[in-house]
Formats: sequence, C-alpha cells, structure tokens
Amino acid sequence: MKPVKVGICGLGTVGGGTYNVLKRNAEEIARRAGRGIEVAQIGARRANPLCATGTTPVTADIFDIANNPEIDIVIELIGGDTVARELVLKAIENGKHVVTANKALIAVHGNEIFAKARAKGVIVAFEAAVAGGIPVIKAIREGLSANRINWVAGIINGTGNFILSEMREKGRPFADVLTEAQALGYAEADPTFDVEGIDAAHKLTILASIAFGIPLQFDKAYTEGITRLTSADVGYAEALGYRIKHLGVARRTERGIELRVHPTLIPADRLIANVNGVMNAVMVNADAAGSTLFYGAGAGMEPTASSVVADLVDVVRALTTDPQNRVPHLAFQADALSDHPILPISECESAYYLRVQAKDHPGVLAQVASILSARGINIESVMQKEAEEHDGLVPMILLTHRVTEQCMNDAIAALEALNDVAGPVMRIRVEHLN
Amino acid sequence: MKPVKVGICGLGTVGGGTYNVLKRNAEEIARRAGRGIEVAQIGARRANPLCATGTTPVTADIFDIANNPEIDIVIELIGGDTVARELVLKAIENGKHVVTANKALIAVHGNEIFAKARAKGVIVAFEAAVAGGIPVIKAIREGLSANRINWVAGIINGTGNFILSEMREKGRPFADVLTEAQALGYAEADPTFDVEGIDAAHKLTILASIAFGIPLQFDKAYTEGITRLTSADVGYAEALGYRIKHLGVARRTERGIELRVHPTLIPADRLIANVNGVMNAVMVNADAAGSTLFYGAGAGMEPTASSVVADLVDVVRALTTDPQNRVPHLAFQADALSDHPILPISECESAYYLRVQAKDHPGVLAQVASILSARGINIESVMQKEAEEHDGLVPMILLTHRVTEQCMNDAIAALEALNDVAGPVMRIRVEHLN
Repeated sequence: MKPVKVGICGLGTVGGGTYNVLKRNAEEIARRAGRGIEVAQIGARRANPLCATGTTPVTADIFDIANNPEIDIVIELIGGDTVARELVLKAIENGKHVVTANKALIAVHGNEIFAKARAKGVIVAFEAAVAGGIPVIKAIREGLSANRINWVAGIINGTGNFILSEMREKGRPFADVLTEAQALGYAEADPTFDVEGIDAAHKLTILASIAFGIPLQFDKAYTEGITRLTSADVGYAEALGYRIKHLGVARRTERGIELRVHPTLIPADRLIANVNGVMNAVMVNADAAGSTLFYGAGAGMEPTASSVVADLVDVVRALTTDPQNRVPHLAFQADALSDHPILPISECESAYYLRVQAKDHPGVLAQVASILSARGINIESVMQKEAEEHDGLVPMILLTHRVTEQCMNDAIAALEALNDVAGPVMRIRVEHLN
Repeated sequence: MKPVKVGICGLGTVGGGTYNVLKRNAEEIARRAGRGIEVAQIGARRANPLCATGTTPVTADIFDIANNPEIDIVIELIGGDTVARELVLKAIENGKHVVTANKALIAVHGNEIFAKARAKGVIVAFEAAVAGGIPVIKAIREGLSANRINWVAGIINGTGNFILSEMREKGRPFADVLTEAQALGYAEADPTFDVEGIDAAHKLTILASIAFGIPLQFDKAYTEGITRLTSADVGYAEALGYRIKHLGVARRTERGIELRVHPTLIPADRLIANVNGVMNAVMVNADAAGSTLFYGAGAGMEPTASSVVADLVDVVRALTTDPQNRVPHLAFQADALSDHPILPISECESAYYLRVQAKDHPGVLAQVASILSARGINIESVMQKEAEEHDGLVPMILLTHRVTEQCMNDAIAALEALNDVAGPVMRIRVEHLN
C-alpha cells in the first residue's frame, strides 16, 4: 500500500520529536501499521536544531498544511488554544483527520471540536495530551471498556512532582526547588500553569470525560497549587506515613462527579506515592478490573512523540473504517454522554490533614477536638510537636476521617477564631486510594 | 443496531466473571460500543454458584457454541491446550471471531491459530491471557507502536509474587507460605505451573512476540522456579538494597532475544520492586517512550473478565472493518515478523548475586575474588556475615557486574571446587531495569 501522507504543524519539542521518531523507526512502524507514514509537509516558523528535516517541504504558514490536498492527517503541535483551535477546525472542515498533543485545546474546546469532527466523519486523536508517553487514554477508553469506573487519580504534572520529590528527599523549600526546576528546563519562566495545577486540571478534565462518559467541563474543575506547601508539612506527612503529591482526582459519587487538583497526602506504601521526579502515573479504580496503574514519562520530546505516533498508526488503520464503528472520542458514544453534574468543591468529600499553630497551653487540644466533634468530624490521629520557634507556638497536626469540604471549611473557621490558635490553619486533603 | 451475539465456553472463574460483568455493566458497555452484547449460549458441564445465568441457554457440549450459526464471537474460557485448541480452530473454521484468556493455548499453539484466523479473516483476541485486568497487550501492541522496544520485564504470576512478598515481609520460609497460598486459593494443589515459572513463561512468550515482532516460541523460554529461595537470601538481598521478584525478562540484543523467567534481585527503589501480594506489573523499555509500567490485578474472576469483555468490545467494533486494517495478532504484520533468534540461557547476560558458604578461614575471599577476576567478572560488592551455624561456615554474599551466564557457570564450577567452599553456590540473577 502507498504511504499515508501527514503534515506536522509546529516543530518545537514535540514536533521535532515526532519527526525524528517517524524517521528513525520508519521500518518498525510500517511493519506494524502495514504501510508507511510519510511527512509530506511541515509548518514551522523556525528550524529545530534537534531535528534535521532534510528535503521535507517546510512552510511558515501552518494553514498550508490544513489546506494541502495531499495530506490525510494533520498533526497539531503548536500548543495554545486560539490559533490551534482555528487550525484544527480548518483541518476538520477540509475532511482531514487530526492528531494533537494539546491538552488545553481539548479540555477547553474539545466538545466543539469533536462535534465538528463527527459531522465530517473524521477522527481527532489526543493520546499525547495526557501523561506524555503513557498510553493512558487508550487504556481507559479501550482497555477498561468493560468497567464502570469509580475514580481516577493521577500525578499528571511532572514539574510539580519533581518539586515535591525534591522537597521530600532533601528537605528543601518550595522556592529553591522551583528555581532549580527552571534552570533544568522542567519549569517555565512563568510556572503558573504547572505549580497552580492548571495544566493538571486540563488533563484531569479529559480523563474524567473518558472515564465517566461526560462532556468536557474544564471550567468546573477545582484547582489548588503547591506554592503554599512548607517543608515542615512535607516532613510531618512523612512522619505520619504519608507522601504529599499534587494529585488530580476525579471521582464518581451518587450526587455528582468530583473534579479536583490539589496537594494530597497519600499513604507511603501505595505504589503511586512512590512515583518520583518528573515521572507521571495515573491510577484507575474500576468495578471489574479493580485498581490499575499506568506509569511513565509525562513529558519530553520523544515520550510525547511516542503517543503522537501511536495515534497516527491508529488513525491510519481507521482510514477505511466506517465512522460509527470507531472508538468514540470521549470513550462513550456522543449521543450517550451522561449529564451527571460536576460537584462544586464544597460538596466534595475527603479526609484532611490539618496543621494548627496553637499556643503552648493545656486545654488547646480539648478545644480543637470539641470543634471538630461538634461538626461530626472524627479524628484519626493527633501529633503534637515541641515548640520550635521563639513565638511559643506549637504545631498540632491532625488527621481526620472523610467529611465534606463545606463541613471542614466551617470547622476551620471556628478553629481560626480560637484565642489559642494563631494564624491560618494549614489544610491538605488526604486520599487513601484503596 | 442489533446486539452482537456471543457464546461463552466454560463457566468457571473467568467464564462466570465474564457473564456477570456483561450483565451488570450492559448499559455502560453498550454506551461505549454503540450496540449491546448478548450472551446467546453458554457451554458448560456444571453451573457456577457465583453466576446466575437465568434464561440464557446452556449446552454441555462446547462445540455447540462453535457451530451455532447465530453466534458471531466465541469466548474460549475452558483452559488447557488440547480441547481448547480444537474448539478455537473449529470456531475459526466456522468464520467466528474468538476471544480467549488462555495463555498456554496462545503461547504453544498461537502461530497455528493466528495463521488459520488470517486465512479465514477473523480475529483472535487474547488480552486476558497476560496479566489479568491490566490492558498490557493493548498498551504494547497499540499504545507503544511508535517504538523500538528494548526490553520487557514483568511480575506476571500472582501466586509467586504473593509467596515472595510474604517471605520478605514476615521472614517466613517458602514451604510455609506456599501452604497458606494454597489454603487461600491463590495456589493450585499442584503448584508447579506457578512456582516453577511455566505460567509466567507462557505470558512472557506472548509479551516478547508482540514487543519484538517474532513468532511465538514457548519451547525456547528458560524457566527457573522460586522453590530453592531461602529466607536468608531474601534477607541478604534486602540488606543490600534489593528485593527478590520472580521476573520474566525479554530483552532484545544484537545477537538475539533473551527470554527467561527466574528469581531476580531488583533495586528496592524501582517501582516494580514495590509490587506486592498477588498484584502483577509489566515494565516496558522502549526507545521513544522510555520506561513505562502497567500495574494491576493479574488474575481473579472480574479482573480477567474485564480484559475478556474489552476484547469483545474491540471485536464488535472491528466486525465491519476489512481485515488488513486490523491490529495484527502479534502487533506486527504477519508477513513482517522477524527471525531474530531466541538466545539459549548460556548466552544471556545479567548481573549476579552469589551466596558462597565458605569456611571461616583467612584467604577465602582472595581465592573467590581471583576466580571471578580470572574470568573477567567484576565484583560490585561483598558482604560477609558472621558464622551462623554450628558448621563453622560463613555465608559470603557477592554482587557482580553483568556477564554471560556461560561465564558465570564456569566461575561457579570453579568456586564449588574450592576446598574452603562447602555445598553448591546460590546464584540469583540481578536486573537493574534502568
């Protein structure tokens, strides 16, 4: 069979990696796909020194790719959600299949894009949008298709996980590690997307849709960053047998779906608690399969390219299939999506780690315990440290059982109103993942 | 669309689980697949108390299913590789697609079965044959299709992993834990398949084929069981920073492919070293994606059913596709398989843990070191314990760098010939998996 012709839009890290992998592994890929994949055109304003494109035609206008009648599949790797959206919609309009690594684009404009793709009978594939080289979209969408999925929990931002791993292993403060991560190229000059959980929320939004069969609803995701975490909290968590991870959690409950990204204590003996450095992992709990975990590199030139090219092979195989027998974009048939609501964070449930800075008085613990118990919050354990600072304040660390966030907000307000408590209460959610 | 009609052959643990999952999650599965899946007939000699089959017709003759003109897909869950082979070949002959969980059948007769399936244009799907509920066949065959895969390493027998986990955590001897595993139903009355590595070798044979694009060659797999492991070795490994796992390793080298199942020391900080109890995990190292790991329940009623039903959904989607655009059975097109040879164990390479029972003399270490060095074997570390027994023998533990098995066999023969060394040298292979 003749090779399939594809066009790469964007020749940055992932674009360069995709070109290189397609070239280096051309024979191996053709042995699998049954035909070759030929890059017919590249759309890029600048060359990539890590990618020798040889005689492949390059255009500065990415829309040339979407309009090139020779090209069957457009690979969108420019990032962002404005021009990328126009490009993808134009490619679809021209009857081309699309492969993208763009999590923001899918999380924010996916519903619109998939509707248009269905109308035109083309595929939009996005494995590389979540967790880089880990084929987790495929695992959930196809590999677990027998299951009612209960929850998904993921370490899906490598920068954040690198920072938390360094804080724990070396007792370093957040700001220090962030500076190093920036020097190493793990974190952007403006690290907001990574450390505030926005990037993770994009990915979690996608995972929740394919796990539960709901439309993409990025605007309803709750995000809380890791910037306020102290080395002390990391150490106390460790002493209690936990690790702190920046976790994305999507959980199905009877009242609705929880969709939240925040620092989270996880028991240290869970496999996912031992995922360190820039690595990613996604854990899925489902009614038949039980718990599964998918681990690997969440970013980088070639891991992400691995997923882009796997999508290409899938699309090549599906070129001749009739659209209604394809794997649906969001795992469930478009007319069978559920309107189960996303819960606001106040209605989400979790266990909590609380650090209360209390005056070194007898009776403070009794007051704290009474506030919690009056609201039906059970205490699992209490750890009181020696007074460390000149201010005579003693950190009191509590682990609670599961309650709603609303109930905990109320309790924290009452704790902060106590005369013997100084400053804000540090609150970190706890997930046992069992 | 009308539901697809399937027949289940065998109503044991996996057959019962498959029926139950198809029934309980019928709506969720149909929302994904776009049509229902109806069990039109069951072939079983006895009822399964955990599975209420209601009005579904049951026949005592499984060949009725393969011959039933109403049935599109035959699900083979009877196990074994004699009747199961005949059944699957008959179903294929009758133009039916097949889903099976039978690792022995695929590992031993897969080449014949796939050839016949190709000739008849039908699919034989076997996700459930390896690592139960973990969609690892799909991950390697489709999710990593961009990659040249370097090696695969897996904990792919839950019984063996349960035994080794208990030995480590509680310092219990092998025989004790085996008896408990049998009582818990994790191990068969005849545990040979599990503890001697035959079951793992079946699965590893399948993983190696789809990773490297080679025909199935179970007869060339090297297997070594865990029955000779002592609590002392487990403890020494721990003291050196390692865990002992019953690992299946398939590695591509220039000279050929290593295909081996044996007890293996793995550095304790590797994620796979922390997979405990009956859980399974498969690690894949590939040129673009780097290292990925897939973890979950490796056996059991519903985890295995999860994979059987996922295969069903895939086959339902592929009913109308033309065969040449399907995912090839062994990941690579049948006419593009490689004849890269499987290496005999003597030509495989690994690092080694050696336990030498030596007389408590000065100069023994010098003799041992000289035997190793004469054969180009570098020592990474040596640990000498106090004499523990009345016999005055001192265990000397060595970790070596990587050498061929042949070279190590030769060294061990020389060590055992020393006057100051008593009894056989305990040898366990070491893999760093990085």
